[in-house]
Amino acid sequence: MAVLLPIDLRRSEDVPILQCLGRRLAEAVPGRENVPGFTRSTVDGYAVRAADTFGAGDGAPAYFTVTGEVLMGAGRPPGVERKLELGEAVRIATGGMLPSGADAVLMVEHTETVGAEGIEAYRPAGPGENVIYADEDIRAGTEVFPVNYLLRPQDIGYLAAMGELRLNVFAPLRVGIVSTGDEIVPVEAKPAPGQVRDVNSYSLYGQVLLWGGEPVLYGVVRDDAALLFEKLIQACESTDLILVSGGSSVGARDYTAEIINQMGAPGLVFHGLAVKPGKPTLGGVVDRKPVFGLPGHPAAALIAFDLMVAPLLKFGGYRQIQPGALPVRALISRSLASAPGREEYFRVRLQYRQGVLWADPVLGKSGLLKPMVEADGLIRVPLESEGIAVGAEVDVVLFGTDYVL
Amino acid sequence: MAVLLPIDLRRSEDVPILQCLGRRLAEAVPGRENVPGFTRSTVDGYAVRAADTFGAGDGAPAYFTVTGEVLMGAGRPPGVERKLELGEAVRIATGGMLPSGADAVLMVEHTETVGAEGIEAYRPAGPGENVIYADEDIRAGTEVFPVNYLLRPQDIGYLAAMGELRLNVFAPLRVGIVSTGDEIVPVEAKPAPGQVRDVNSYSLYGQVLLWGGEPVLYGVVRDDAALLFEKLIQACESTDLILVSGGSSVGARDYTAEIINQMGAPGLVFHGLAVKPGKPTLGGVVDRKPVFGLPGHPAAALIAFDLMVAPLLKFGGYRQIQPGALPVRALISRSLASAPGREEYFRVRLQYRQGVLWADPVLGKSGLLKPMVEADGLIRVPLESEGIAVGAEVDVVLFGTDYVL
Repeated sequence: MAVLLPIDLRRSEDVPILQCLGRRLAEAVPGRENVPGFTRSTVDGYAVRAADTFGAGDGAPAYFTVTGEVLMGAGRPPGVERKLELGEAVRIATGGMLPSGADAVLMVEHTETVGAEGIEAYRPAGPGENVIYADEDIRAGTEVFPVNYLLRPQDIGYLAAMGELRLNVFAPLRVGIVSTGDEIVPVEAKPAPGQVRDVNSYSLYGQVLLWGGEPVLYGVVRDDAALLFEKLIQACESTDLILVSGGSSVGARDYTAEIINQMGAPGLVFHGLAVKPGKPTLGGVVDRKPVFGLPGHPAAALIAFDLMVAPLLKFGGYRQIQPGALPVRALISRSLASAPGREEYFRVRLQYRQGVLWADPVLGKSGLLKPMVEADGLIRVPLESEGIAVGAEVDVVLFGTDYVL
Repeated sequence: MAVLLPIDLRRSEDVPILQCLGRRLAEAVPGRENVPGFTRSTVDGYAVRAADTFGAGDGAPAYFTVTGEVLMGAGRPPGVERKLELGEAVRIATGGMLPSGADAVLMVEHTETVGAEGIEAYRPAGPGENVIYADEDIRAGTEVFPVNYLLRPQDIGYLAAMGELRLNVFAPLRVGIVSTGDEIVPVEAKPAPGQVRDVNSYSLYGQVLLWGGEPVLYGVVRDDAALLFEKLIQACESTDLILVSGGSSVGARDYTAEIINQMGAPGLVFHGLAVKPGKPTLGGVVDRKPVFGLPGHPAAALIAFDLMVAPLLKFGGYRQIQPGALPVRALISRSLASAPGREEYFRVRLQYRQGVLWADPVLGKSGLLKPMVEADGLIRVPLESEGIAVGAEVDVVLFGTDYVL
């Protein structure tokens, strides 16, 4: 499922590299210099000319005179100045710079010392053996990472190797969150009979954070079109994307749609999804900003969020560092029926039993909070399917992971 | 693999609930009140006495007089005061509070209006149908979440429903990071030939963040026992756990071990792991704080981190929201040989081809940075195995996920 909105939510910002974990690149990073920048040894041993080792074996070792040692460290390291001549070797440590003329390193384990200044090699070394070339990690002028690349710890280290101190990354989207409903009270309040606390503001706040956005709470608005209109205008002024959840009285959902149309063009884009749970979801665009009406049921609101909102937040980068759409494969522990004509999502709990990973459906009344807490993830029954038979393999999308629909 | 250290790194702190995403509970949360706190409807319809619907069917509808409506919202909602009598129904919306005497709700779709004040039901409703009971989400006095529970967005919402404003969670561990090596220069510097920039401080910084810790950088120390001793004492004073990576000159690793012993009892705990890459890893305890010597190779340092350090950071909660140890199952695209007697880790890249998820080994010289960047995760060849045959199923642990060894 994809929604094409006539807007571009991307904004970029210049950020110190240590703060770029989980962010996405707003521009490609070119290779500015070669890394490691010089030819290095990958082992402790002796730098030699590979040709001098050819033919060496247990019965016929190759003899080398050790003429010095490459020291690690500052400036052009001592020991690399003098060009290696026929039959010469230079002692070198892992990471050391190869002296001029050398093109391979003999591992210390494959040599034996002979007298004070000689070694014997019992194996030939090919050119480049135990060596990393100057441009083998990064070659100047090539592209290191493309636009949109998601930065993981190892990527931060890799760019540090090239001396990158700041990166141009996409800015997190500011997401305004509004709860509506005459029966909803703030979490600080003691609900009277018939009232419940504002669950959606809190779970959506977490969900926005999880997907790399910056949540901004606008509190609870009662089911009153004028008040909701005013609150949404306010949210539009200082956020990039707005979520309105609830409106549980019968007509409330309709006026959320009307308000979105009143706020500005193009207004309402869709009204209702062929998805269960999540059917009453609606969405529109106001002042070039997406506004989503999410279901009042907390569990349905979270699923609608994952479907419709999470894909838009990705420009800010995810907190989740997951490469693409990789669900966990499990066996379903009971049959599930589904009506063709809509996608249906079932919550499941994962458990290893006898070495097999089982997905146990978490069934429960639709208005309950507990099933959303008891579950580890979701399985999707496609639009035209009539269900899943017990024992079938299912792909479980774990809650909060980076999945693409 | 488990390392038992004679220390307890846990510290707890009291944190506003909106800042608790990805944190672990330092104490169990009890059910302080019933949630939702009153009996609610899960549909739009009519609250009735279930017994009055028994026997209803298409040919013999049950007739009800609609005596009022439950309004949503403030205080004891209008419409719930008067006890429902035989044959009476009260209009109710999703989430509304059931009137006294009612024990089921007829969905509006299953009724028809008759005149101004009557409805007919064409199906019987069982007691509790379309109803959530007062204590069905949370029952006062029971345990809601145990100690160590990892808080996801839906859990934050669930606790908000009970009015929790602050939670007692484990504090993130402060992790001191020190790089050593005569050839290592700060990322800001332009390396001379033979020098390389400090990759490990940056990738370990990201890794600590990813696992929920608070990284503190102590910069680069050259291979000098006295300087390293001084730096480690300094790091011990203001962090909970210390990582020293590198020391690439031949004797450096040995004096890291010696320094750990000199710093205090019990000192060095282990020296070397039967793991490839990661063999030169060492660890000890100083002043009740773990100190790890990680390999200088950035890729090996990250694997050693995942094996030894990540499990200790979990008390601070992970940024990663993954339920336990759930690797991705894939098929290996080429055979890999491994020497029995040590665990071997191979980096793999994941790719779907013809609908099958393949794990393609990312092979490369051990000192290169690029393979760690090109890979999506790791596969583990167990201690006694001689390798994996092409086409075999492997479990890929994605980089940065919450896995337990």
